[in-house]
Amino acid sequence: MAARVDLLNKKLKELEATSPDIEGAAVASSEGFIMASALPSGTDEELVAAMSALMVSTGERNTKELDRGELNEVYVRGSDGYLLMRGVGENAVLVTLARKDAKLGLVFLDMRRAADEIKDLV
Amino acid sequence: MAARVDLLNKKLKELEATSPDIEGAAVASSEGFIMASALPSGTDEELVAAMSALMVSTGERNTKELDRGELNEVYVRGSDGYLLMRGVGENAVLVTLARKDAKLGLVFLDMRRAADEIKDLV
Repeated sequence: MAARVDLLNKKLKELEATSPDIEGAAVASSEGFIMASALPSGTDEELVAAMSALMVSTGERNTKELDRGELNEVYVRGSDGYLLMRGVGENAVLVTLARKDAKLGLVFLDMRRAADEIKDLV
Repeated sequence: MAARVDLLNKKLKELEATSPDIEGAAVASSEGFIMASALPSGTDEELVAAMSALMVSTGERNTKELDRGELNEVYVRGSDGYLLMRGVGENAVLVTLARKDAKLGLVFLDMRRAADEIKDLV
């Protein structure tokens, strides 16, 4: 049986292959530690994991306080592209990098599917 | 001359009037303190200000680390609506609540204009 980290890395690679707008992806624990990564080389993965987990947990508190229901996604738009995050069950966060001209509807759909598959691994 | 807080409140009210998809708005300092608010009554404004400033500053660090350029917007999608945030100059953050079925392109445009106007007041 493949190690769990190998299965996670495989799922991330599949996600990148499915969605050409996705340039990188990672799974972080809710505490902000990296679990698996297919991020561009040179990225500080621990920093990205910590910040993504922080954004999702803050987003969850904020949506609750402001009666926006359950958190679905957090998106950060930069001048050169997007960071997209969503919870994976209660224990983890999926973060992806998308191109500037990404079709976000499709990317979100692929992320939702990937998160559903990853949920059983974390 | 009207007090600055009155001018800020006026801008927030104008933003809500321009964009019927916006249900509430506030301006927070980058440190996370409330500067002006047109949020629904009963909202913990200090909490929202603190969390919004945290999300924008974390988003800024994350976009920088991941080569996404300058931060434009942070968006949080909940099952019952959106929270939308953007920086106002370097000292403040504009946060709005939008309906579940909001036309986000228009809301972002109105927010960008409002942020430009508010920038001179903060």
